[in-house]
Amino acid sequence: MTGTEIFDDRKTRASAWFTELRDRICTAFEALEDAQDWGPHKHLPPGSFTRKETRRASAGEADAGGGVMSVLRDGRVFEKVGVNISTVYGNLGEQAQRSLTARKEIPGLEADPRFWASGISLVAHMRSPKTPAVHMNTRMFWTPGAWWFGGGADLNPMVEDADDTAHFHAALKAACDRHDPGYYPRYKAWADEYFMIRHWNEPRGVGGIFYDDHCTGDWEADFAFTRDVGAAFLKAFLPVTERHLKEPWTEADREWQLVKRGRYAEFNLVYDRGTQFGLHTGHNPEAVLMSLPPVAKWP
Amino acid sequence: MTGTEIFDDRKTRASAWFTELRDRICTAFEALEDAQDWGPHKHLPPGSFTRKETRRASAGEADAGGGVMSVLRDGRVFEKVGVNISTVYGNLGEQAQRSLTARKEIPGLEADPRFWASGISLVAHMRSPKTPAVHMNTRMFWTPGAWWFGGGADLNPMVEDADDTAHFHAALKAACDRHDPGYYPRYKAWADEYFMIRHWNEPRGVGGIFYDDHCTGDWEADFAFTRDVGAAFLKAFLPVTERHLKEPWTEADREWQLVKRGRYAEFNLVYDRGTQFGLHTGHNPEAVLMSLPPVAKWP
Repeated sequence: MTGTEIFDDRKTRASAWFTELRDRICTAFEALEDAQDWGPHKHLPPGSFTRKETRRASAGEADAGGGVMSVLRDGRVFEKVGVNISTVYGNLGEQAQRSLTARKEIPGLEADPRFWASGISLVAHMRSPKTPAVHMNTRMFWTPGAWWFGGGADLNPMVEDADDTAHFHAALKAACDRHDPGYYPRYKAWADEYFMIRHWNEPRGVGGIFYDDHCTGDWEADFAFTRDVGAAFLKAFLPVTERHLKEPWTEADREWQLVKRGRYAEFNLVYDRGTQFGLHTGHNPEAVLMSLPPVAKWP
Repeated sequence: MTGTEIFDDRKTRASAWFTELRDRICTAFEALEDAQDWGPHKHLPPGSFTRKETRRASAGEADAGGGVMSVLRDGRVFEKVGVNISTVYGNLGEQAQRSLTARKEIPGLEADPRFWASGISLVAHMRSPKTPAVHMNTRMFWTPGAWWFGGGADLNPMVEDADDTAHFHAALKAACDRHDPGYYPRYKAWADEYFMIRHWNEPRGVGGIFYDDHCTGDWEADFAFTRDVGAAFLKAFLPVTERHLKEPWTEADREWQLVKRGRYAEFNLVYDRGTQFGLHTGHNPEAVLMSLPPVAKWP
C-alpha cells in the first residue's frame, strides 16, 4: 500500500471504532435508564437516545464532513447526555489551527493545509446531584505532515467523594498502564492543568486524564491506547453512578448542582479547546454546544 | 497644570461621573420595583441593590484598583440586575492588550505598559419574558500614549417588538446627534457587527450602539458624549419596560426566555470584549461575570 492508502485504511478504522464506542456507551446508558426504579424521576419513561446528523459548513468546500449527535434528554438518570461522533476534513484556517492543538506548529501545514479529524465526545449532566457529571473525548487527527491522537475523561461531582475519585482514576490508570507506565502520571497532570477554571482558580472537577499530540510514531500502538481509554470510560464511570443512584437529595443539593453547572458552562465556553475548535471550524453549533447543561444558574 | 495633573483631574471626573450614573440608575430601578403591583411576583418585597467592593488582583502590584458591584436579585421586575463600577490600573499584560480594544496597536505601550481604566457596566435580566433584557456600558481608558472612550447599549427582547426597538434606538440616536450626526449611523453599525453570536450567525438582540477607541482629540467633548450616552440609557430603556409590565406571559414564553439567556451567556463568555478583558486582567470574577443570567437553559 502507498502512504495515502495506509492512512485511508487507518482513518476508516479509527472512525469505525469511535462509532462502535458510541454504540456501546449509548446501550449502557439506556440500560441504566431502564433499570432505575427509584427517586423523583422513576415514573418517567426510561430515556433513550435520539440521533441527528450534523454537517460542518466551510466556505468553498462542498463536503467538509460532519457527524451524528446522539442525545438523551429528560431521563430517569440522565437529565441530558450527548454523545457526538464526527469526521471532518478540509483546509484548516488560522484561527482553527490555534485552537486545535497544544503544539505551536503543525509541520507541513503551511504548504498543504488539509486536515482530517475524527472523534467521539461525550458530556453527561445527571438528574441526581449525588451523581457526578462526566466528560469523555477521544480523537484522531491527521494532516499531510503529522498525525496524532488526543483524548481524556474527567469526573465532575457536585461534592467530591474520595472513593468515587479513586475508582475513576484507577480505571483510567489501568488502561494507561497497559501501554506505558509513564502515561497515567503524565496525562493525569495534564488533566489537572487543563480542567482548571482559571478565572476562579478552581478545578472544574476531580480530574482524570487529558492527552493531546499523542504520537509515538507507532500508529497501531497509539490507536490501541486510544481504544483502551475509550473502553475504560464505562468501567470508570458506571460504578460511581450506580452507587449513588438511590441516594436522596435536598433542594439545596440541586441548587448547588445548578451553580456547578454554570461553572462547567464557563469552562466550556471560555477555555475548552474542542469547543473553540468546533465553533471556529464551522461545525454545527448545536453539536459543538451539546456539552452545555440543560439548565444552569448564576445566582 | 502639567499633562499628568490634567489627566489626574480628568480621571477623577470620569470616575465620579460613572459613580453618579450608577446611583441614578439604581434609584430608578428601585422605584420601578416599588411601583410594580401586578403579576406573579407582586407579593415579593420590592427588590433593592446590595453593594460589594471588588478588587483586581495583579501579581507584583499591591494596589491594582477595584470597584463596587451593585446587584438586585429576585425582585418584582428584575430577576437579576448588576451595575458595576470599577477603576483599575497597573501594567497591562499581553493577553489583556489583545482583548481590551479593537485597535491593533496602542501607541507607546511597549515602552510604558501602564494603564488606567474606569467605567460602568450594567446587565439586567428581567422577570417577565415580555420585557427585554438590556446591557449598557461606558468607560474611559488611559495609557501614557493614548486615551479614549468606549461604550454602548443594546436591547435584548425575547421576541422583537418594533415599537420598542424604534424607541430604544431613537433615544440613543438623540444623544449621539447632539454631538455629531455621524456618530449614530457609525456606532449603530458597529453594534450590529459586535452583538452578533457568530457561531449561530444570529444577532443577540435588536442592537443599539457600540463604540470603542473614541478619541477626537478633544477630551471634554468626548467625555460629554459619553456622559450623554449614559444619561440616555434610562430614557431608552425605562419606557420599553414600563409598557410591558402588566402583560401576562405563558410557560412557553418563560422557556424561550431561558433559552435566549443561554445564548446571551454564550455571547458573553465567547465573544464579549469586556468579559475577556476582566477575566484576563485578574479582576474579581464575580464582578466580571455579574452579567450572566440567574438561570438559563440549553435544552
